[in-house]
Amino acid sequence: MNIWDNKAEDVRITYIGGGSRGWAWNLMSDLAMEDQMSGVVTLYDIDLEAAKKNVVIGNEYQKISKSQGFTYRACTDLREALVGADFVVISILPGSFDEMESDVHCPEKYGIYQSVGDTTGPGGIFRALRTLPMYVEIAEAIRDVAPKAWVINYTNPMAACVRILYEVFPEVKAFGCCHEVFGTQDLLARLAEKEFGVEKIRRSEIKVNVQGLNHFTWLSEAAYEGQDLFPLYEKAAEQYKDGIELDAGKNWMNNHFASANCVKFDLFRRYGVIAAAGDRHLAEFCPGWYLKTPETAHSYKFALTPVSWRKEKLNELLETSRRRVSGEEPVKIQPSGEEGVKQMKAILGLGDFVTNVNMPNKGQISNVENGVVVETNAVFSKNSVKPVFSGEMDKHVLNLTQPHIYSQNAVIQSCLTGKLKPAFLAFIHDPQVNLSIEDAGKLFGEMVENTKDYLKGYDLNW
Amino acid sequence: MNIWDNKAEDVRITYIGGGSRGWAWNLMSDLAMEDQMSGVVTLYDIDLEAAKKNVVIGNEYQKISKSQGFTYRACTDLREALVGADFVVISILPGSFDEMESDVHCPEKYGIYQSVGDTTGPGGIFRALRTLPMYVEIAEAIRDVAPKAWVINYTNPMAACVRILYEVFPEVKAFGCCHEVFGTQDLLARLAEKEFGVEKIRRSEIKVNVQGLNHFTWLSEAAYEGQDLFPLYEKAAEQYKDGIELDAGKNWMNNHFASANCVKFDLFRRYGVIAAAGDRHLAEFCPGWYLKTPETAHSYKFALTPVSWRKEKLNELLETSRRRVSGEEPVKIQPSGEEGVKQMKAILGLGDFVTNVNMPNKGQISNVENGVVVETNAVFSKNSVKPVFSGEMDKHVLNLTQPHIYSQNAVIQSCLTGKLKPAFLAFIHDPQVNLSIEDAGKLFGEMVENTKDYLKGYDLNW
Amino acid sequence: MNIWDNKAEDVRITYIGGGSRGWAWNLMSDLAMEDQMSGVVTLYDIDLEAAKKNVVIGNEYQKISKSQGFTYRACTDLREALVGADFVVISILPGSFDEMESDVHCPEKYGIYQSVGDTTGPGGIFRALRTLPMYVEIAEAIRDVAPKAWVINYTNPMAACVRILYEVFPEVKAFGCCHEVFGTQDLLARLAEKEFGVEKIRRSEIKVNVQGLNHFTWLSEAAYEGQDLFPLYEKAAEQYKDGIELDAGKNWMNNHFASANCVKFDLFRRYGVIAAAGDRHLAEFCPGWYLKTPETAHSYKFALTPVSWRKEKLNELLETSRRRVSGEEPVKIQPSGEEGVKQMKAILGLGDFVTNVNMPNKGQISNVENGVVVETNAVFSKNSVKPVFSGEMDKHVLNLTQPHIYSQNAVIQSCLTGKLKPAFLAFIHDPQVNLSIEDAGKLFGEMVENTKDYLKGYDLNW
Amino acid sequence: MNIWDNKAEDVRITYIGGGSRGWAWNLMSDLAMEDQMSGVVTLYDIDLEAAKKNVVIGNEYQKISKSQGFTYRACTDLREALVGADFVVISILPGSFDEMESDVHCPEKYGIYQSVGDTTGPGGIFRALRTLPMYVEIAEAIRDVAPKAWVINYTNPMAACVRILYEVFPEVKAFGCCHEVFGTQDLLARLAEKEFGVEKIRRSEIKVNVQGLNHFTWLSEAAYEGQDLFPLYEKAAEQYKDGIELDAGKNWMNNHFASANCVKFDLFRRYGVIAAAGDRHLAEFCPGWYLKTPETAHSYKFALTPVSWRKEKLNELLETSRRRVSGEEPVKIQPSGEEGVKQMKAILGLGDFVTNVNMPNKGQISNVENGVVVETNAVFSKNSVKPVFSGEMDKHVLNLTQPHIYSQNAVIQSCLTGKLKPAFLAFIHDPQVNLSIEDAGKLFGEMVENTKDYLKGYDLNW
Repeated sequence: MNIWDNKAEDVRITYIGGGSRGWAWNLMSDLAMEDQMSGVVTLYDIDLEAAKKNVVIGNEYQKISKSQGFTYRACTDLREALVGADFVVISILPGSFDEMESDVHCPEKYGIYQSVGDTTGPGGIFRALRTLPMYVEIAEAIRDVAPKAWVINYTNPMAACVRILYEVFPEVKAFGCCHEVFGTQDLLARLAEKEFGVEKIRRSEIKVNVQGLNHFTWLSEAAYEGQDLFPLYEKAAEQYKDGIELDAGKNWMNNHFASANCVKFDLFRRYGVIAAAGDRHLAEFCPGWYLKTPETAHSYKFALTPVSWRKEKLNELLETSRRRVSGEEPVKIQPSGEEGVKQMKAILGLGDFVTNVNMPNKGQISNVENGVVVETNAVFSKNSVKPVFSGEMDKHVLNLTQPHIYSQNAVIQSCLTGKLKPAFLAFIHDPQVNLSIEDAGKLFGEMVENTKDYLKGYDLNW
Repeated sequence: MNIWDNKAEDVRITYIGGGSRGWAWNLMSDLAMEDQMSGVVTLYDIDLEAAKKNVVIGNEYQKISKSQGFTYRACTDLREALVGADFVVISILPGSFDEMESDVHCPEKYGIYQSVGDTTGPGGIFRALRTLPMYVEIAEAIRDVAPKAWVINYTNPMAACVRILYEVFPEVKAFGCCHEVFGTQDLLARLAEKEFGVEKIRRSEIKVNVQGLNHFTWLSEAAYEGQDLFPLYEKAAEQYKDGIELDAGKNWMNNHFASANCVKFDLFRRYGVIAAAGDRHLAEFCPGWYLKTPETAHSYKFALTPVSWRKEKLNELLETSRRRVSGEEPVKIQPSGEEGVKQMKAILGLGDFVTNVNMPNKGQISNVENGVVVETNAVFSKNSVKPVFSGEMDKHVLNLTQPHIYSQNAVIQSCLTGKLKPAFLAFIHDPQVNLSIEDAGKLFGEMVENTKDYLKGYDLNW
Repeated sequence: MNIWDNKAEDVRITYIGGGSRGWAWNLMSDLAMEDQMSGVVTLYDIDLEAAKKNVVIGNEYQKISKSQGFTYRACTDLREALVGADFVVISILPGSFDEMESDVHCPEKYGIYQSVGDTTGPGGIFRALRTLPMYVEIAEAIRDVAPKAWVINYTNPMAACVRILYEVFPEVKAFGCCHEVFGTQDLLARLAEKEFGVEKIRRSEIKVNVQGLNHFTWLSEAAYEGQDLFPLYEKAAEQYKDGIELDAGKNWMNNHFASANCVKFDLFRRYGVIAAAGDRHLAEFCPGWYLKTPETAHSYKFALTPVSWRKEKLNELLETSRRRVSGEEPVKIQPSGEEGVKQMKAILGLGDFVTNVNMPNKGQISNVENGVVVETNAVFSKNSVKPVFSGEMDKHVLNLTQPHIYSQNAVIQSCLTGKLKPAFLAFIHDPQVNLSIEDAGKLFGEMVENTKDYLKGYDLNW
Repeated sequence: MNIWDNKAEDVRITYIGGGSRGWAWNLMSDLAMEDQMSGVVTLYDIDLEAAKKNVVIGNEYQKISKSQGFTYRACTDLREALVGADFVVISILPGSFDEMESDVHCPEKYGIYQSVGDTTGPGGIFRALRTLPMYVEIAEAIRDVAPKAWVINYTNPMAACVRILYEVFPEVKAFGCCHEVFGTQDLLARLAEKEFGVEKIRRSEIKVNVQGLNHFTWLSEAAYEGQDLFPLYEKAAEQYKDGIELDAGKNWMNNHFASANCVKFDLFRRYGVIAAAGDRHLAEFCPGWYLKTPETAHSYKFALTPVSWRKEKLNELLETSRRRVSGEEPVKIQPSGEEGVKQMKAILGLGDFVTNVNMPNKGQISNVENGVVVETNAVFSKNSVKPVFSGEMDKHVLNLTQPHIYSQNAVIQSCLTGKLKPAFLAFIHDPQVNLSIEDAGKLFGEMVENTKDYLKGYDLNW
């Protein structure tokens, strides 16, 4: 990679999970708009065919790009794919949607309803158990082949994935990215527009202090042009008890997942701090407050996302992929709303900026133990991503967060030791799992059984 | 008070709640056996008649005492009762059993079952709300009238009661006593007898390291004659999955409340640390593990104690009282198994010893925040009660304990500010309360309504 | 104050110590170059004549300014001067140079040599004792009259001055500015130019992680264009054992005070961390290493600054003032190298940036106790100055720093209580003061006597 | 070893440094008075002849003992000597008095006067460098041969010696014993006798809270019969500004080393906490306060102990040894005043007690980092020595103590890495070493040269 005249040439990006249809296409679109970077994107996927199809699609994007700076190639060998990488992007699906069906729907038999099931609670714990061993392999490969590459993670459970990279290779330069905070910045921007009579406030103009675990992130401060937005938000939280719906987001991933922010406002009324993730995620970190039954969720105006819907959606994407590869449907360049490319450019030295990321705590949240992967702002600059000091978390919110810190520690320990006991303790400590110990054991056992094809590294006698 | 020839004369004991029929009679019996102390016991009670009856009974005990060292008197004015006190014993019932009926049984409508309901969970929180304002008054009186007296608390919720004394009067010399740990020492003694073929091991010979919150106390070490008892206990926990029943305790308070230690053993199998309170108490600190339904409790071989039983029991005691006062039934001296008198003697300089007490954390548990009232061992010596350093709590157990530390902080804050909001947050953070936020609000509101006669200092708009 | 079209109008700056000839003229010059800000500068000084002369000079600067945006006025009443202030700049001399003569030279009789004597050691402690009561008065006035103003401190001892503002008025929006770190960035820039063959690297291009106490600040990281500069610096520290002299700085305050960086390099060879203040300051924080005798200092190629020189210098400045006021000597606009104006603009919303400031620790240095005023980077943005998380200080360097943290706490306590004992303890704990306790007492007593006109608030019986 | 009828039979004690004439004879005398323990004492020494002479002397003691329970044997092989040990006592001289001559007197050329030179300052650092590698060997042997033995250390520097045992073998059951606190308890007893008109108060009746590093230990509380002794001590500290001499101690080791407690009282007047070691030790931990010159020490009424005196004393002891071995001089049983035998008995289960020991901090001092070997009280009971929680150290005293904590860490690191640099940093951070960096380097170099025969494991290029 060379930096020249404020341009970065020959940038090498390795995409692990390069056959994916969501995040990968987002990146392709964003790269096609980019004229300060050029180079090669290597798509690695265990599904080589999918990666190859994406090579075709990626090259289609480049054809209609003005700058035409990137070429795409597929690779079947992880370590080979990493050679020379400046950036490694990871976005994989651990297991198939069948396993996710177990994660999300198996607990329903025991009265546990999950709106997403990929981060915390029974679903999140099992997804972590499946994913982490793959990440151990990836971390070892990065350590051996591309130790100086910057690693950007998109896979959930975000925090545990980033954490295991550091556990295996402490010198890794990794961080995790998530757009959930953006949605709350958008909400604040809309409220500020109304309040101040300003036309179009961009989300990046909403300055926030971010603290928490991914998908359970909180804003202890928010300002527009130096003006505190908390009074505004407080007013909204009182006014919109029945929720407020923003115009549908521009990102496919959020589009079907809209909420009316009822959970966010309810949490604010209790804690006086702004919860900064989608309501579907927030609800899963709490006890049964918003998810006791599907009706409870309904009354808070957010949906439980069934895995069957994900399967349908996947079929649609596969069809889109087929048509794009065959040329039936042309690709279309549009901004994804993600920040990956902007982050890469900052790391390459093409402009500093501040955004929220997931990295191990070194004190950026001063009342959370060190080592836990937390979400705060960070300053991106040349070859540097440094967390911004965010102070102490609100003690009430921290108390809500404790079981999830515990859970992160536990799944990491399960992965590193191959024992399921730590994960089971996290399972029964999780506020969503309020079962008799006997039922908890049964449910855990069923979920192990359902997903055992992806739990091969573990001693299944927990 | 004078110390002379290894005897303490003119010791002044003020008993707040001096009309009580349980703890007060215990103390009378123990004092009647005592020949190293003499003096005056002042019984203060808002129910003056009850206190007067106990004066009669106390004097009956002295009549059959060999040493006849104590006289009893009743007093209707708190501050007058405290004048000259060397020791203040507090054992009161906050409200009547009608309020306790609300504490214990009102949550059952929402599927929350409590086996005791006086320490944590909905019942414990409301009991704290009722009790703490009374303790504020007591603490102020001690501060003004008897600031150098040693204060021994027996009232539940133990930890919050001791805590508020220190909040109001930081120089108070107070600690809280509880016999729950003794039961676990007894269990260990029985197991050690079997294992080592020794005849009669006294509970005081079982040396333990105590850590936790009252009624959720844990032993990180246990030894008999220098020998580690953990392997023994581990074996028992495996062997007696269906529980083990010791011969009925000697203390009336525990007698009807026996359990088969199933919860204790189950917790040990999970955490490898010995839970050191009765199963009925332990179960309430956990999520629904042992209390999801009455049947769950039954399967773990412990009972839910209905308040109706307490009411009956009270009537029996009232009848006993009547008969004792009238002389129909003579009093009988027998050791109570409590340590109050032994503790007083140690503080008077008549023999050092070590036992478990509840005091504000100053580092005796190194990973719990300072100020929280915790239970650990303490060294009792002349005019001194010093907590013993107990190290860090097991991190898994600490995670279970966190919501209860939070709850202690919250009820204290509610009491000091007169606002119910902190208590409500503790309520919805409590692992027993896993309701939709709407139901949680309804239940809390009902419990406020039911007990509002005793919540006069609070703003009831939470 | 109004923000309009990326310009700030009617900005109100109150300058406490507005009769000064150094910092005040710097600010006038910088403001004269400024076309994004306009408003009024109120010069407050206990020496009204000096302030009035500076009004004349300030207006001279404006006459030759292109934008002519500022007007100057003098004010004799502190509280009146603060009315409506957006910014308060404080730069005062506590006492006269006669007191400073005692600070610096009185200890020499006891073998204690100070190269500056305004920050730490005997001189720094006494300067703090004199200054802090004035700051109490200033803080109270700001609290009452201009609580929302941003307060920029330039007075030494920097850390204690900023600290006392927060002690008196915890909501104050104050920070302290110091250019010492800039010099080390310049040194790094020069070394980088040589190494990389780049022509002109600006100090702002040298990115550093700042940690420490003012004048004893350290860089744990330094980079140019993302490249680590530590290997470079290590090489220089080995190569230039006899020092390296940069071309004379552009700032009058540093010009006569140059060093050859021998102390800086020596410290680096020991600790592997870059000390980031002038050698004259650094030496005073250490035991006798570089200041055991004047010859020791000489061998490290830095000078002890005699107060007689300061007096001469003052006379020159008074003469310059006279000539400027009389019109004999025209004022000349040139950049001061200070960042005050840039900081104001960022706070007004005219462009974010990061620089080093002195603010109370809230965790930005994670192994220094909270509340101590420390120097780290901070992000300046609209109505916001937020310290950047800097991690832990090197444990060796922290050990060197401990007595100075202690000393900061002590002088604050002396000021707040009016007792000299804390200051005396700090005095005898200071590594420069290695005397018999008897001599230490004598010296302290002499220094009290010498400066007692400025110690009126203290009980002089320590 | 067997416990039977409140007696311990066949107790195996291995004495490392068994040829010593001081501590070894003390132990022999104490064991000769003992009728609850019997067994074998194995004397190991690199000077086998000395060990053999002590076998003769030990057996002489037994001949005149009533119980005659112990036999003595010599052993030349460390690991053989440890086989079957219940207790390991370590009391060795690292190097000869020639090395100690360098430790104590070489720094005098640079104006550094040490009154003992075996714990801290230049002498203590070099003594640590010599001793620790021997302790590594001992710790490895204990780990391999007698991992369950209790290890009692008497060698100085006490704290570093105990620390390295734990660094090498974390499960070691080791503690360090020192009688310095006893002297302060004696002083308090004498003062209490006068105050209360009581005849003979034993030191064990003075209850104290001990906190600090060995030889720089402090009492934050002291009581007799529950009465606070601080007011008494404060009065004495004011009254006896010229010191107070107790009758000469009964222990040969202290007899020639008496002081008038001037340093102790001076420190109390400054800090309000009781320093609890002999003045000769205390003075060495402070800056030049009491040791700036020999005259300073003299004015505080304590002596610098020249190594020549130690050499003479050694010759006397060698002569005593000769005469005892030859039978010219009979041995005489008398209590040593040490607690070693009492401690062994408590560990054997023959009676609990509390005394001060040196063990790694696990929180017993809550504001000192974990792992540092600190001195506090501990409870001795069967197979258990548990530090007592002592709270926080006074922050002023802690600031004085910081360089010595740093030094302990540093010498351990030098030993474990074989590098002298950490030790040199500790050397120049030591408050006694207030030299120019050049002189500090020279002195360090000379001391390395003088003692290099005992520094063979180190890279001498620091």
